[in-house]
Amino acid sequence: MARPLIALLSDFGYRDHYVGAMKGVILGICPEATLVDISHEIPAHDVIAAGFELASVYEFFPSGSVFLVVVDPGVGSTRRGLAVDTGGYRFVAPDNGVLTPIVRKISPKLVVELTERRYARPTVSRTFEGRDRFAPAAAWLAKGIQLSALGRPTDYKVLDLPLPDINKNRIVGQIIKIDRFGNLVTNINRKMFEQFSEGGSIYIEVGSHAINRLVGTYADIEKMEVCALFGSTEHLEFASHSTSAVNKLSVECGTRVVVSRGKPDK
Amino acid sequence: MARPLIALLSDFGYRDHYVGAMKGVILGICPEATLVDISHEIPAHDVIAAGFELASVYEFFPSGSVFLVVVDPGVGSTRRGLAVDTGGYRFVAPDNGVLTPIVRKISPKLVVELTERRYARPTVSRTFEGRDRFAPAAAWLAKGIQLSALGRPTDYKVLDLPLPDINKNRIVGQIIKIDRFGNLVTNINRKMFEQFSEGGSIYIEVGSHAINRLVGTYADIEKMEVCALFGSTEHLEFASHSTSAVNKLSVECGTRVVVSRGKPDK
Amino acid sequence: MARPLIALLSDFGYRDHYVGAMKGVILGICPEATLVDISHEIPAHDVIAAGFELASVYEFFPSGSVFLVVVDPGVGSTRRGLAVDTGGYRFVAPDNGVLTPIVRKISPKLVVELTERRYARPTVSRTFEGRDRFAPAAAWLAKGIQLSALGRPTDYKVLDLPLPDINKNRIVGQIIKIDRFGNLVTNINRKMFEQFSEGGSIYIEVGSHAINRLVGTYADIEKMEVCALFGSTEHLEFASHSTSAVNKLSVECGTRVVVSRGKPDK
Repeated sequence: MARPLIALLSDFGYRDHYVGAMKGVILGICPEATLVDISHEIPAHDVIAAGFELASVYEFFPSGSVFLVVVDPGVGSTRRGLAVDTGGYRFVAPDNGVLTPIVRKISPKLVVELTERRYARPTVSRTFEGRDRFAPAAAWLAKGIQLSALGRPTDYKVLDLPLPDINKNRIVGQIIKIDRFGNLVTNINRKMFEQFSEGGSIYIEVGSHAINRLVGTYADIEKMEVCALFGSTEHLEFASHSTSAVNKLSVECGTRVVVSRGKPDK
Repeated sequence: MARPLIALLSDFGYRDHYVGAMKGVILGICPEATLVDISHEIPAHDVIAAGFELASVYEFFPSGSVFLVVVDPGVGSTRRGLAVDTGGYRFVAPDNGVLTPIVRKISPKLVVELTERRYARPTVSRTFEGRDRFAPAAAWLAKGIQLSALGRPTDYKVLDLPLPDINKNRIVGQIIKIDRFGNLVTNINRKMFEQFSEGGSIYIEVGSHAINRLVGTYADIEKMEVCALFGSTEHLEFASHSTSAVNKLSVECGTRVVVSRGKPDK
Repeated sequence: MARPLIALLSDFGYRDHYVGAMKGVILGICPEATLVDISHEIPAHDVIAAGFELASVYEFFPSGSVFLVVVDPGVGSTRRGLAVDTGGYRFVAPDNGVLTPIVRKISPKLVVELTERRYARPTVSRTFEGRDRFAPAAAWLAKGIQLSALGRPTDYKVLDLPLPDINKNRIVGQIIKIDRFGNLVTNINRKMFEQFSEGGSIYIEVGSHAINRLVGTYADIEKMEVCALFGSTEHLEFASHSTSAVNKLSVECGTRVVVSRGKPDK
């Protein structure tokens, strides 16, 4: 039988012992679990960035995986803790909207509030529920406990994340992520783009820059050029060859991206 | 039977292959081990910081866990290598005082010097005993070798780490850690504080700043305010809401913290 | 039976989900694999640095380990994907010369191009073959598939990496790595050095600095001194005591290192 898999995502960084504490707690409950770090370098308290990373990666994990997501600026407050079952995957996270990109892609079959005290640590710190409440819940799920045993069904918070605005003349989206290589990822996916372009000629603006070329991969870009392409999550992104696109274009998360059929009016 | 667990703590960082080398060695000896990184971002050679992280996290690991601690400015010198049994846990580390915070909390049942050559690699590099001596010792412990087999009983170095100075009028402690979020952790724990305050009104100074409010968790802090609270290791800490406390207060590790019953004389 | 081991090396960093995606894919194919990170902080696209890290660490892993190496500036282009069997170890990597330091040390028994589509993901992204082609190949090897099943035998790219120039009067090498501690590692190994020096007195220059002393380990260095020593990979390196050698000497990768028998003419 396959070993249970728990994937972790947080803003705890790698300097402090916080991730180690969560893993120690998990392995005390479910020593046979395989633990995988998605990232712990989410910017502090950036629930939106965490949600985007999670939505970009979860479907590459095997069915049955448990995701432990702890980006939790409201720790110790009245915000609830959640466990979510989407059929294929289970998610444990604070109820602060961090799962918004997930529940937009896959409708949950069951969402419960983490109320059952027996599946938390005996004492729950008001400053580290990741260790005392969320990690144990994830570990018990990995161990085979039914998600419905963790608490009562509940509704959950959904963030009003910007979706691209599409009309017959243009798509207006935005930069939602800048990766380690300086590639700029937008919220415009390939399907939206191809339905709009219908294979015709396209003009793209990011901030005040025009992007003239859509290529297949990074190696197609000439030196010093910035091109558009579809990255590994099938979203439109901007990349450069010999430098990073973010340095070249001086844009940031939130910068407007316009896709149109001809050169748009300014 | 539960898989053996080895938790690693070092100042090796994540850029170089050093942690990977230790893990390769461990898995060659004990392939069934589960490896957990506590942190490898301890500041280079900072034995005190490593000891504090270790003491903050070890008790969240399951009983029987082995901790491999390699912050080792004296590598290759005459300083000894140690294996320590505290009953619940085993620790392998250089004898440079890095285990001081641990042995203050739990009295060792047995401490041995790593003299048995058969439990080290055949050749021990004078610049990387973590790989050639400490990692193998931890792996053999995880595999089931008795700690007493690793070498002869020995005494060990204990650092003179600052403890809070407590009298009937005040507690004088210090900042001992700044975490990724900019929270400032002190060496004053909840028990000391509550025995001193007896539930009465309290005045706190950190460096030249007065802290007016003790709250339950980060979400209780108003924007731009800096508050005191008890963090997840039950130590007094200072935190801010919309910025990091370290930026707000411009203090550092070692900065004096005074808890008193009334506004103290300057 | 020992669990299969896959060690990962990339330039993906720890901020993004890319490493997590590869691990999710691997564990979907081979859930019993133990995964070890060598490093994901290789400078972006630095094939040479990746090769050097790999060559420094692979032999500390148990025989049979699979190494998944993804530093891949040519992703999605016509450059091939490789699987390499050296007898003791297997390597999966793009054919961009990243394995040069490995194949210099151990002659491959078999090198194949990753042509068998059934051992890749059904859809292969042109911007992330690490996830869709290399990770699955490594996972199938770990699961027990013969390397010859992954594709047809092929030749492979070898980089013209600088080797030390040795004559009877001197060795001219270079700095090839600067580690987290600021130690400067050269491409001159102990064997070359000892064959040259024959135990006699030696003079070393790195850039414009003279190094007067060869010591056994870091603890032998006086405060503010920079010394030469043989590091844990048996290469000549330069290290300092109370500061980092790189700050002290202001040198960089590529800086010339000259070992001679007397003070050389300028």
